[in-house]
Amino acid sequence: MSPSPEPGTARGWVGTSVRRREDDRMLGGNGRFLADHSAGAAHVVFVRSTQAHATIEHVDTTAAEAAPGVHGVFLAADLGLTDTPIPALTIPDPDFTAATSLTLAEQRLPILACGTAYYVGQPIAVVIADDRYLAEDAAERVEVSYRPLPPVVDAEEALQPTSPVLFDHLDDNEAASLEYAFGDPEAAFAAAHHVVQGTYRMERHGAVPLECRGVLADYDPARQRVDVTTSTQVPHMVRNAICAVTGWTREDVKVSVPDVGGGFGTKANVYGEEVVLAVLARRTARRLIWTEDRQEHLVASAQARDQLHRARLAVDADGRILAWEDDFVVDIGAGSLWVSGIVANTAIHLMGPYRIPAVHVTGRAALTNKTLVAQYRGAGRPEATFALERSLDAAAAALGLSVAEIRRRNLLTADDMPYARPIPYRDGVPIAFDGGDYLACLESAVRALPASEIEHCAAEHPDHRIGYGLSSYLEATGRGPHETARMRLRSDGRFEVTAGAASAGQGHETVFAQVAADALGVPLGQVRYRPADTERLPDGVGTFASRSAILAGSAVHQAAGELIDMAARRAAALMGLDAEADVVEYSDGCFRAGARTVDWADLAAARCVGGADEGGPALDVSTVFRVPTVTWTMGVHAVILGVHRRTGIVKVLRYAVSHEGGREINPRIVEGQIVGGVAQGIGGALFEAWRYSATGEPTSTTFAAYHLPLTTDVPNVVVNHLHVDTPANPIGVRGAGESGTIAVYSAIASAVDDAVGGGLHVATTPIHSGDLCRAMTGVPA
Amino acid sequence: MSPSPEPGTARGWVGTSVRRREDDRMLGGNGRFLADHSAGAAHVVFVRSTQAHATIEHVDTTAAEAAPGVHGVFLAADLGLTDTPIPALTIPDPDFTAATSLTLAEQRLPILACGTAYYVGQPIAVVIADDRYLAEDAAERVEVSYRPLPPVVDAEEALQPTSPVLFDHLDDNEAASLEYAFGDPEAAFAAAHHVVQGTYRMERHGAVPLECRGVLADYDPARQRVDVTTSTQVPHMVRNAICAVTGWTREDVKVSVPDVGGGFGTKANVYGEEVVLAVLARRTARRLIWTEDRQEHLVASAQARDQLHRARLAVDADGRILAWEDDFVVDIGAGSLWVSGIVANTAIHLMGPYRIPAVHVTGRAALTNKTLVAQYRGAGRPEATFALERSLDAAAAALGLSVAEIRRRNLLTADDMPYARPIPYRDGVPIAFDGGDYLACLESAVRALPASEIEHCAAEHPDHRIGYGLSSYLEATGRGPHETARMRLRSDGRFEVTAGAASAGQGHETVFAQVAADALGVPLGQVRYRPADTERLPDGVGTFASRSAILAGSAVHQAAGELIDMAARRAAALMGLDAEADVVEYSDGCFRAGARTVDWADLAAARCVGGADEGGPALDVSTVFRVPTVTWTMGVHAVILGVHRRTGIVKVLRYAVSHEGGREINPRIVEGQIVGGVAQGIGGALFEAWRYSATGEPTSTTFAAYHLPLTTDVPNVVVNHLHVDTPANPIGVRGAGESGTIAVYSAIASAVDDAVGGGLHVATTPIHSGDLCRAMTGVPA
Repeated sequence: MSPSPEPGTARGWVGTSVRRREDDRMLGGNGRFLADHSAGAAHVVFVRSTQAHATIEHVDTTAAEAAPGVHGVFLAADLGLTDTPIPALTIPDPDFTAATSLTLAEQRLPILACGTAYYVGQPIAVVIADDRYLAEDAAERVEVSYRPLPPVVDAEEALQPTSPVLFDHLDDNEAASLEYAFGDPEAAFAAAHHVVQGTYRMERHGAVPLECRGVLADYDPARQRVDVTTSTQVPHMVRNAICAVTGWTREDVKVSVPDVGGGFGTKANVYGEEVVLAVLARRTARRLIWTEDRQEHLVASAQARDQLHRARLAVDADGRILAWEDDFVVDIGAGSLWVSGIVANTAIHLMGPYRIPAVHVTGRAALTNKTLVAQYRGAGRPEATFALERSLDAAAAALGLSVAEIRRRNLLTADDMPYARPIPYRDGVPIAFDGGDYLACLESAVRALPASEIEHCAAEHPDHRIGYGLSSYLEATGRGPHETARMRLRSDGRFEVTAGAASAGQGHETVFAQVAADALGVPLGQVRYRPADTERLPDGVGTFASRSAILAGSAVHQAAGELIDMAARRAAALMGLDAEADVVEYSDGCFRAGARTVDWADLAAARCVGGADEGGPALDVSTVFRVPTVTWTMGVHAVILGVHRRTGIVKVLRYAVSHEGGREINPRIVEGQIVGGVAQGIGGALFEAWRYSATGEPTSTTFAAYHLPLTTDVPNVVVNHLHVDTPANPIGVRGAGESGTIAVYSAIASAVDDAVGGGLHVATTPIHSGDLCRAMTGVPA
Repeated sequence: MSPSPEPGTARGWVGTSVRRREDDRMLGGNGRFLADHSAGAAHVVFVRSTQAHATIEHVDTTAAEAAPGVHGVFLAADLGLTDTPIPALTIPDPDFTAATSLTLAEQRLPILACGTAYYVGQPIAVVIADDRYLAEDAAERVEVSYRPLPPVVDAEEALQPTSPVLFDHLDDNEAASLEYAFGDPEAAFAAAHHVVQGTYRMERHGAVPLECRGVLADYDPARQRVDVTTSTQVPHMVRNAICAVTGWTREDVKVSVPDVGGGFGTKANVYGEEVVLAVLARRTARRLIWTEDRQEHLVASAQARDQLHRARLAVDADGRILAWEDDFVVDIGAGSLWVSGIVANTAIHLMGPYRIPAVHVTGRAALTNKTLVAQYRGAGRPEATFALERSLDAAAAALGLSVAEIRRRNLLTADDMPYARPIPYRDGVPIAFDGGDYLACLESAVRALPASEIEHCAAEHPDHRIGYGLSSYLEATGRGPHETARMRLRSDGRFEVTAGAASAGQGHETVFAQVAADALGVPLGQVRYRPADTERLPDGVGTFASRSAILAGSAVHQAAGELIDMAARRAAALMGLDAEADVVEYSDGCFRAGARTVDWADLAAARCVGGADEGGPALDVSTVFRVPTVTWTMGVHAVILGVHRRTGIVKVLRYAVSHEGGREINPRIVEGQIVGGVAQGIGGALFEAWRYSATGEPTSTTFAAYHLPLTTDVPNVVVNHLHVDTPANPIGVRGAGESGTIAVYSAIASAVDDAVGGGLHVATTPIHSGDLCRAMTGVPA
């Protein structure tokens, strides 16, 4: 990691681990999260369904309305929201749809339940009161009469013709399906030296950020506009959804984002609560706040994963992959705006970074009576990776190869690049991996954590059985189609930059300032990043899919170029030159023509009243950066862990990641992303699951039941960054936001197999210590 | 008054009395004034001097700091404000300065008193606490030890060499002086048929708006900026003063203005409280609010008037003015940022709308131990008008002419226009009245309220003596040098317009939208006005000096033209034409080239991502409108009043104003300005005075002692608007904001003289009923 440039230096900020600018604020306790804006607001509480599936026969709000401090109690019909589901966020690309036979059912889950309750936690009514206490008290006085309907809680059963169908407008519970094949998988399976097959389940878990969700909505009577502040990753999508539901124009609502304490995908979603608060604020002309509490979060924020894969892998005698077949089912609960993304992402990442000549993939998403599903760090990739990597481990075991060796024989190398898969990516562009040398990445990980390290660990932990595991992953990063940025010259000659990708804590204020400073050729201190809102930057896409550094970073870079071009013409005019004469050169903050110079402070001063450029347009550019398709990040995780001989509790002892990414804007932030991702992966691999009773009752509604990893569960993680240039964007970066999580499940499963031995083959996460205890019974140590 | 156009009509909004847009909000109780933004803020209370003039020997804050809920107690030294007076707001024009021998003393009244207290009410310390109650309780525990100094409470005495000198850096208490003469006044006086002389005093009174002052300051840690919201008329001046005192850049502070409940000049000032709140917010990183209470307002908000004039008027046998001499003293209390304006305004308006061949004017401003002084509706004009008009009435009485006749003989007529005075206006431009026919205006007023109406009044009010009075006034309006406006096309094809002049309730949202709609040729509903803040519009001047309609209105008009020009180039491009080809015509919201058309909605849509003009600059223009000098408004007030025979109480019975103005953007709003001005003038003429004891103790600290006019004190006012075109600005308007007030004092005094009879000559306002009782004793009815 190279040292930071001196503060006054005008180049070289990208690539250096400058201190996170937001941390002065965050670590000083001065962050302003959603709830920190509650002053002056009336409090909103949602009355949520207690039934997984029921007809709502009647809702009696009389007692609640009469409760102290209550301003109102509203049902869907009161707000004109009886037939208004949240609009779909993305439309799948037609080429991808055709290539994968993708079908999608129309989802019509209403913003507020009316008629039918589809899951426990679904909002039915909304109470406004002076404070949170009064609102909660009143909410308890709303009486909802239910008539139970048969709950559907298993995805495979939901897809059976015998299952009750949840939604009247649909014929079955299939929310999405796809299928694609290439090569001749049937022939390859028939002729294979060895075929392994397995059923792999990743249970429902998700983001669970430090900060729950929350929405503030305030009606500005002077502007006749609702100002919505929400802890979202996608403010523009929230704005678009509010406009679509209400018919308001973009000028009738502004969505902005405060400091956000983590998103990880569950906040890359548009929620009914966001629409309801906006509608209520306009209706009541009040400032309203809803802050989700943790128990609410655990039933009402979008969940994730919950996939079942039935897989077959054919290999030759040397362990080379001949064919691969996977049939998966995703349980999206009562709905998911991201269903096409989740199904498509799973399907695309099922083949990993390997040479696979023949493939047959089928996937379906099922509607059930569980909480909504959104993306969560990895978004289909961890599930796909788990099925494939577990199958490789099974094949290795069958052939007597090490987990490293079977991968060595199948990983793509520099000679293979660019490597095409015969299906398009989700954007319709044919897939072509643009990596460096995936095999070299494996060797790097094995060097970073050699299997020989097992011996030290065994000596240190005699009460544990020690195992070694490996997993590769491949990740499409930087999903388009575009992102926006705005850059303006401030009156003090410094710069303000904004990008359409909202921050949930990733460090946007730091990294986009770094990109801007380098692109402008000015010291970092000259640039300040300001989060987007839909007024300052009317168009934007958002932060998800490991896309911000690539898309928003490149948009910032592009904006700087446009600002320089614009400024050069103005500088020429200030120097008395023909603006089109193109004799002005720019470097390091200075425009030059012969001996004459103009700097940014001169340009800013010229814009003031009385200045030479008083009437000129502001030096303020907005730009749209587009990418035709994704760029690919790859990596290998190696892990050594111990399984406690008596309790079966897994302790992760050593962890190494080799990560083939692009240029790192801020290496320490990238490393933080990887390490944080590993921590979340450990949670999913060992602890986290939202469980439901047979009648659809959620049973993981507190942190006593939903186990997050503790700091003591996460070892030091060694991260090697293997820099492979990409021409996919002008700043040469690849996404890394999700990379840390994807391979953890399969690497840990691999190591647990190795530790426990005796032919154990972990097929489900989270891995239960009880199962391991049972497996170790009678297995020689 | 012509009816409003239909809502969809694209022309003719200017000149029609469309409903005030702000009233939907205001009358619905949805205005958001400063105090409505208090949520989440800690409360600030100022500890103020109880001594008019004293050395501050010690301030003990220990007990206050220990009081419950207190976050801090600060003195000037704690905030680095020991040697920082508020910077002067305006620099007088050098040509005016030279022509009038204007001298100004450097004022160094500190933002927070340290060392010396100069007036009762001067802020000494500041307390921050959880709420207002706790802050006030703590403020009472701040112990200030004073050593009394001799107070200076009379302006003429203050200017004597024997007076104690208030400020160490000055040799005397003279804050300003001027002198000018033209013609040969001494010769004229010597040769005159008749000379009247008098001493005219207008006591200290002022704006006393419905809403007191208030400041909210919040530190935004993400932007590292202090956001100041203050009920000011001059947000840009407040911003500039904060920057000058603190050394912050314009980007370090943003000043914005909420709904404001009246300003009238006392809020066209920069106050120490505004600077202190900004400094404290940054220092404490807290949201802080200070809301002035009424008692505080009556000692700590800037006061006004307080002038003494010693005048001589020479007339010939026909009552024609030969020479005019006035020597005036303004008591500015412990300081006034506007001293040059007040002294200059008084001097310039001393000659009224009359032919006066020889003049000698001297004026001085004195520093005393009273509250600060700022402008108040009229700002020197009522005082000057009172001296001149009273002198004319005295001459009329001496010559046996009616009050109408003596004016008739001296008023300028259409034949005189443009009429030059041989001195420059305050901007250095030679004065040239650009009016229509001032004599015609007199006749109009006399027709509107003929003296014969006295008989009806006498019959209706037999217990009153009835009198008739007249007064002319002349007002320089639309003081430059410039004002700014910004106009942008919104994404919905509508328009948002902003001007640098802040509203204190005048109707900016309505009238500037009218100007913009006409200039754009679009329906009024397409335009929304948004108040300026220093971020959206970094430069601006403010609302005072009857300047907003002229300066800001013209800036809005100009911005519309620039936006159309800019849009025409973009429309040409959208139509596939060479943008420079200049074949695009614009009318009524539509750009046309042959059969092709593009409208604003098309242009807005083209700017969105994916639109044909996606990368183009925003259709968002900022403009600066300049005027070389003022334009002149003139008028005549006629009044009939009764003096109660037993109590001497004055009851105003009939009131008519003929007002020679320009084009009226919204006639009903102009009429409201005139009528409101008359009401305030009646207050000053009959009721309002801030009185001080001999030791400088203010004795008018409640509304029991400071009498405002009641609605029952204000009669219906008949307003005739005489429209005289002015080429001084593109929308043809003249200022009217102060017009209603200026002549009220002298018109009422004239009528009281007439009612009481017996040679009474009112020379002081407010007019005391007790004095009138005494005058009526022995005077035949």
